[in-house]
Amino acid sequence: LPNRIRKSDVVVIGGGAIGLAIAWRAAQRGLGVTLLERGRFGEGTSRVAAGMLAPIAEARPTEQPLLHLNQASVKAYPGFADELSEASGMDVGYLRCGTLVAARDRDDAEALERELEMRLALGLPVSRLRASEARRLEPALAPSLRLALEVADDHAIDPRLLTAALVEAGLRAGARLRAGAEVATVEVSPRNRVSGVRLTDGEVLETEHVVIAGGVWSEAIEGIPHEARVPIRPVKGQILRLHDPSGAGLVSHIVRIAGSYIVPRGDGRYVLGATMEERGFDTAVTAGATFELLREVIEVVPGVSELVIDEVSAGLRPATPDNAPAIGPTSVHGLWWAAGHHRNGILLTPITAEIVAGMLVGEQRPELAAAFAPARFARGAAQSSTRRDRLMPVGA
Amino acid sequence: LPNRIRKSDVVVIGGGAIGLAIAWRAAQRGLGVTLLERGRFGEGTSRVAAGMLAPIAEARPTEQPLLHLNQASVKAYPGFADELSEASGMDVGYLRCGTLVAARDRDDAEALERELEMRLALGLPVSRLRASEARRLEPALAPSLRLALEVADDHAIDPRLLTAALVEAGLRAGARLRAGAEVATVEVSPRNRVSGVRLTDGEVLETEHVVIAGGVWSEAIEGIPHEARVPIRPVKGQILRLHDPSGAGLVSHIVRIAGSYIVPRGDGRYVLGATMEERGFDTAVTAGATFELLREVIEVVPGVSELVIDEVSAGLRPATPDNAPAIGPTSVHGLWWAAGHHRNGILLTPITAEIVAGMLVGEQRPELAAAFAPARFARGAAQSSTRRDRLMPVGA
Repeated sequence: LPNRIRKSDVVVIGGGAIGLAIAWRAAQRGLGVTLLERGRFGEGTSRVAAGMLAPIAEARPTEQPLLHLNQASVKAYPGFADELSEASGMDVGYLRCGTLVAARDRDDAEALERELEMRLALGLPVSRLRASEARRLEPALAPSLRLALEVADDHAIDPRLLTAALVEAGLRAGARLRAGAEVATVEVSPRNRVSGVRLTDGEVLETEHVVIAGGVWSEAIEGIPHEARVPIRPVKGQILRLHDPSGAGLVSHIVRIAGSYIVPRGDGRYVLGATMEERGFDTAVTAGATFELLREVIEVVPGVSELVIDEVSAGLRPATPDNAPAIGPTSVHGLWWAAGHHRNGILLTPITAEIVAGMLVGEQRPELAAAFAPARFARGAAQSSTRRDRLMPVGA
Repeated sequence: LPNRIRKSDVVVIGGGAIGLAIAWRAAQRGLGVTLLERGRFGEGTSRVAAGMLAPIAEARPTEQPLLHLNQASVKAYPGFADELSEASGMDVGYLRCGTLVAARDRDDAEALERELEMRLALGLPVSRLRASEARRLEPALAPSLRLALEVADDHAIDPRLLTAALVEAGLRAGARLRAGAEVATVEVSPRNRVSGVRLTDGEVLETEHVVIAGGVWSEAIEGIPHEARVPIRPVKGQILRLHDPSGAGLVSHIVRIAGSYIVPRGDGRYVLGATMEERGFDTAVTAGATFELLREVIEVVPGVSELVIDEVSAGLRPATPDNAPAIGPTSVHGLWWAAGHHRNGILLTPITAEIVAGMLVGEQRPELAAAFAPARFARGAAQSSTRRDRLMPVGA
């Protein structure tokens, strides 16, 4: 039925974790919500994500506003997971596993000492473990281990269970969730106000509010005035999913080593990641990346050799020019961003949904979110549009 | 239609490369052939095989009868491939690529010098290449290369194209090829003569000749008297399939390194293998095996890092106690074996089919095949039956 007109209070574009959570939260607040997903729910970047909730292990001293946002979201996670689990009737795979950061050699150990000092200076709860102490916590760690940091509060969630539960909770809350619905254009009136969205099949949905939560695919959406655009580039991450035929127990913490990590699911399944590559929209799995990930993790947890490989895949993290998310309204009335979460999409899902749903019903922007206003990219928008044309043909 | 009776001159059990080739060749000689495959054609061990035709690179001085059989088959391959291609109207993926055996370090180089001497003593056509000469032939070889052997006559075929063409050629020659038809029992009369086979669904096929070409699954067939059984154990091989997004040209020869190899398909696709593991019927792909295969091959051909992984899989080589195949008749009249080809199944497909089809129509056993008579396992048969019960529950 092309060209029929539908009316929603808010249209959310993007059916990954962020978009689905916003749709759920907005519907809970009484809004008439339609979510449009070009493919299937949760099958873009969310499906590939490992699901580490690791603001402390990943803290950078130069990114304090992001650290605070991350910490607020991680603090909200237990309640969010419980509520979502109850609202959906589904397990969301939240695992209080804690994290160990491992040093394999003297260079790693020196770097880790600096990481420890930085975190202590920021008042973050980390502790230094001698190799023997770390191996008491995780006997599968290699004898060659030099040093470890314990980050007791960095946990994990299974993003595939999370998105499945968000779909169910959103539907139960009354949101209209549509898969296979690709947005061509956001329609903006001459008075600089959102009036609707037009799908690629010609269908038009009337609405006064549009939330762009399309991750790396957000840039393909036409009709957004330059001053309200957020440049987003894909950062490729290759990742392996494995399981232990002898059951759970190889490692019970997330173990991080330099650029790599192994995340336990608690049931004998593990996720091993991840590369950081700037290669446009390429999602090929390469021999070199698989080799390097296995090499780093097997060196620190030799028992990983015995795990069975279930899946090798690559996802595209959506990154803005400053690698921090764009959350909130723009200079176009009714046009909102909730995208560009880079490495922190799953982690920031609860707080992003809370902020956006709250502001949609008229709440003030929380102080915490001030640094993430989309307006900070207003000047670079024209430039970004050029880059997009180079990286991604229309329709890709 | 259970329990109906069908009559064939010969029933071939097993729809891999060996069984399909026998069915084709036997039908060409005017026999009424029915082939029974428990799953789908060519989707067992044949589907995983790399397809190296490498009797010279793999020659062992203690296995001269096998070397001669291998050489006869490799000599028959060009004609076999041409005839099959014409009979089926399909490309069979035969590639005259030649083989380089590479030495990475001094230990490898010393071992390779001994391999060279052994082959020269056996009169095999191999040549010693300095690293610079090898890199002139294959510029992608690592600068750290120490030495290489060139085996100009060891080529490759694509086993998936081979089995697809054999299905088509067999059908065109009038063979009855049945997928999804699992044999429960070979029926042997009190006069020690094959009378038919019974499928797991109860159907009975009358026949005076049964050829067992079921690879590692042959041992699940009931009803074969102990003195006519061949013990076959699975030897697991893990393997990777990759492609080069920039097209063909990374390597044009098969490159072998210690236990690993990379086989080019000539079109930018590559096969990288393979482990040798005795783990029963396990076909899991493990992190450790993938890591080791990539490590060995990337060390010698660094450009493999850039290849895209299309498939990781594991197959089961069918191995007899002496690791040589069982080809020919048994003490039970009408019961034949064509199984246990271990690493050489694809290589030995032409000669095995020729020998079995010829003997089925009354030709003498060729001298070449004398060492591979199934009777050499007659004494060990009872023992094998015990091992099978341990490794593989009935129906596995």
